[in-house]
Amino acid sequence: MFVKSLGIMALVGAATLLAPLSQAASLSAQEQAELKQLKDVTLNSDLSYRLIESLTTEVGNRMMGTPGDEKAVRWAQDKMKELGFDKVWTEEITDELWIRGEAEAKIVSPYPQKMVVLALGGSVGTPEKGITAPVAHFATLDDLKAAKPGSLDGKIAFVSYRMERHIDGKGYGPAVGTRVIGASIAAEKGALALIMRSVGTDNNRTAHTGLMRYKDGVKQIPAAALSNPDADLLVNQLKRGKPVNFHLKMSSSRETELVTSANVIGEITGSEKPEEMVVIGAHLDSWDVGTGALDDGLGIGMVLSAAHYIGKLPKRPKRTIRVILFAAEETGLLGAKDYVKRHKNDMKQHMIGAEWDFGSGRIYQMNPGVGASALNGVRELAGYLAPLGVSLAPDNDARAQSDMGLLSDAGMPSINFSPDGMAYFDYHHTENDTLDKVNAEDLKQTTAVYTMFSYFAAQSGIDFRK
Amino acid sequence: MFVKSLGIMALVGAATLLAPLSQAASLSAQEQAELKQLKDVTLNSDLSYRLIESLTTEVGNRMMGTPGDEKAVRWAQDKMKELGFDKVWTEEITDELWIRGEAEAKIVSPYPQKMVVLALGGSVGTPEKGITAPVAHFATLDDLKAAKPGSLDGKIAFVSYRMERHIDGKGYGPAVGTRVIGASIAAEKGALALIMRSVGTDNNRTAHTGLMRYKDGVKQIPAAALSNPDADLLVNQLKRGKPVNFHLKMSSSRETELVTSANVIGEITGSEKPEEMVVIGAHLDSWDVGTGALDDGLGIGMVLSAAHYIGKLPKRPKRTIRVILFAAEETGLLGAKDYVKRHKNDMKQHMIGAEWDFGSGRIYQMNPGVGASALNGVRELAGYLAPLGVSLAPDNDARAQSDMGLLSDAGMPSINFSPDGMAYFDYHHTENDTLDKVNAEDLKQTTAVYTMFSYFAAQSGIDFRK
Repeated sequence: MFVKSLGIMALVGAATLLAPLSQAASLSAQEQAELKQLKDVTLNSDLSYRLIESLTTEVGNRMMGTPGDEKAVRWAQDKMKELGFDKVWTEEITDELWIRGEAEAKIVSPYPQKMVVLALGGSVGTPEKGITAPVAHFATLDDLKAAKPGSLDGKIAFVSYRMERHIDGKGYGPAVGTRVIGASIAAEKGALALIMRSVGTDNNRTAHTGLMRYKDGVKQIPAAALSNPDADLLVNQLKRGKPVNFHLKMSSSRETELVTSANVIGEITGSEKPEEMVVIGAHLDSWDVGTGALDDGLGIGMVLSAAHYIGKLPKRPKRTIRVILFAAEETGLLGAKDYVKRHKNDMKQHMIGAEWDFGSGRIYQMNPGVGASALNGVRELAGYLAPLGVSLAPDNDARAQSDMGLLSDAGMPSINFSPDGMAYFDYHHTENDTLDKVNAEDLKQTTAVYTMFSYFAAQSGIDFRK
Repeated sequence: MFVKSLGIMALVGAATLLAPLSQAASLSAQEQAELKQLKDVTLNSDLSYRLIESLTTEVGNRMMGTPGDEKAVRWAQDKMKELGFDKVWTEEITDELWIRGEAEAKIVSPYPQKMVVLALGGSVGTPEKGITAPVAHFATLDDLKAAKPGSLDGKIAFVSYRMERHIDGKGYGPAVGTRVIGASIAAEKGALALIMRSVGTDNNRTAHTGLMRYKDGVKQIPAAALSNPDADLLVNQLKRGKPVNFHLKMSSSRETELVTSANVIGEITGSEKPEEMVVIGAHLDSWDVGTGALDDGLGIGMVLSAAHYIGKLPKRPKRTIRVILFAAEETGLLGAKDYVKRHKNDMKQHMIGAEWDFGSGRIYQMNPGVGASALNGVRELAGYLAPLGVSLAPDNDARAQSDMGLLSDAGMPSINFSPDGMAYFDYHHTENDTLDKVNAEDLKQTTAVYTMFSYFAAQSGIDFRK
């Protein structure tokens, strides 16, 4: 998943946005009763959990182009049909396949010890015999940037910056830069490889992978993440002041042959304005480690459940509910990029959208990004959600999460729902992203929120556009 | 480490053992002041932590017969000398070397997925191509025992029992049986291999190893532990009612060539009765995964610190403080067995002993196993330790932890100090047993308790023998 680096969100001034409900609620009494019914049903349903259990048990991890990805595309279509969607289809994308291969590493001297590492997504491999070289240690990416050209000739660059734990995941932004661009910066200074402390808040001996990019025209060097305990151990050896020699061997590669995946899209068709869409989404792919339970099995379970329960109402809401399960988010938002291009001409019919790509944890806040004339409607929705512990953020500047951020950029109004993300980065992009990390009770709350939001946006007829 | 399965310890009746200090305290006012000084020094010292940091950083894991074990024996002697011990020596042992090799596993069908496994310590390997066979699932070891002979022909037996989390570690006993004897029981029914849920309380994708034994005359089959999330996944696939095929490949082996290790022993020699010993210990070896920070780096740090600070007093206590760092605890208490045999004739000079082999966590209770005439002295000690949060258990039946249990069996009086063990089995025998799991503050309390106990037992002159 991708997280927006939020900075500090002032809670003062919330009253300016969150005011008492106006007497002219956009939902009728009967519609409000229907909304209440959806809330009660989803708060008592384990459907989201069962969907995640099914996906992680029967499919498992599903990186773009792998057999798991192909199975996931089939699984998603089957589930949408089983769950009573009116339309189900796929939109194909293609890309080169990246192959993780094997990664092994060790400290060679002064105190030989094995290291737990994972290749960063997209990295090249090492020569077959691996690379053995002295470690040049940098506390931060900025320190690496400040190194003189040539100063890393023949060395392995190591950035030991540790991600901070925050409820809104804002520690991710300052940490992830090394992962994304560190290898090329190190290569510009002459380094043979980049190793870095995993972008993660845990102390498990499981490294965190994630996407990296090479700068054009810069030598492509291998890049790997060490688990946090391994990064500690390397730092402790470096602290002793003796040269530290490190060995890294990775068989990662990028294949030139193209592989195919697909966005899987399903709809509960609107009864009065079917061309106007409320879109909810998650990404279908995962990294090729763990079983993708949190990232993003959780979002998949939530949005499928939301559409299912709305589809079970006696009558379809006025607008269409469109569920998009995006392909290849992890490997570069490829599904989202394709979607925006393909749906350029009907983007104005995307009345509002919300993605979920931030794991387990109860939603505590909603942040709109809508036209000013829709703010009364947002306050009304906030009133319905308040009993679930969801407050309304003071700002009207939301960009949707992850894939749907690109739809926001293309003009789609959005609501961003913020969950408690304290534990998320303990498991993000690791082998540890497995079903047991899903909190089944919190999942009921997040599913209820997405269901209520979707129904409200589809039934109220409010124009959220800017 | 080995944990005694404690059952329920009644706290009623504690008053019968814990009574107000008698007026005739066995320590003089000056000695009590010295005890208080030791408490203050150790509660403010990070020496134990620095020792664990040194061991885990410069040595790392150290299974009997590995290069790490050899380094650890050297490290321990060097540290004892640096820390001012009066005598330092080793007592050698020999054994066959077990080699872990590589272990890999996967579910082949109905839903292919990778599994995280570790060979159990002492297991044979599989044929080179591995074993692929249907899984026969048992919820408990008793269920496996109840299977009919021949009913597991051509199958892989899987026991999915999950260890319970308890403060005193009592969930270990009911869980560990499968690990120790499960393979032979499965083999008697015809199984090709045993796989089991790890004996651990965590949800990490890291399996727990530990010692297993083969019954004489029963076919030796490979045995491996799955991480808890992997055991969950396998159970979830089995629940679907289709046959589950599993692949296990392990290159473990036992070498016939003998390897050598050693108990490392050091003393602060008594000033008045040097032949009378107070013995404190831990085990020097670890499994060949993780860096052995909790198991048993922690105990090593504590007992070295305790002897060091007692040795820094202006005068040696009356009795000798003997520190024993046992070899090869994990692979079968080999150091302890050798020690008991070798010291048979002076076992009566072991006035009292305590081992530490139960990881991080503050001590909340002490349980004596001493002669009745020493109980007043034990109550006096309990009075000194009470401000550190240590209560006195009602029973006088303690057997020392781990290695020193064998010394208890040979007649040595013991005190068993019980720490909060809630988190211990999250990390026990896994790659995750690393320095970051050591709580530096709790470690000060446990070090203070062991230091005070050792000083009290050496200086008071109480005869603890039964």
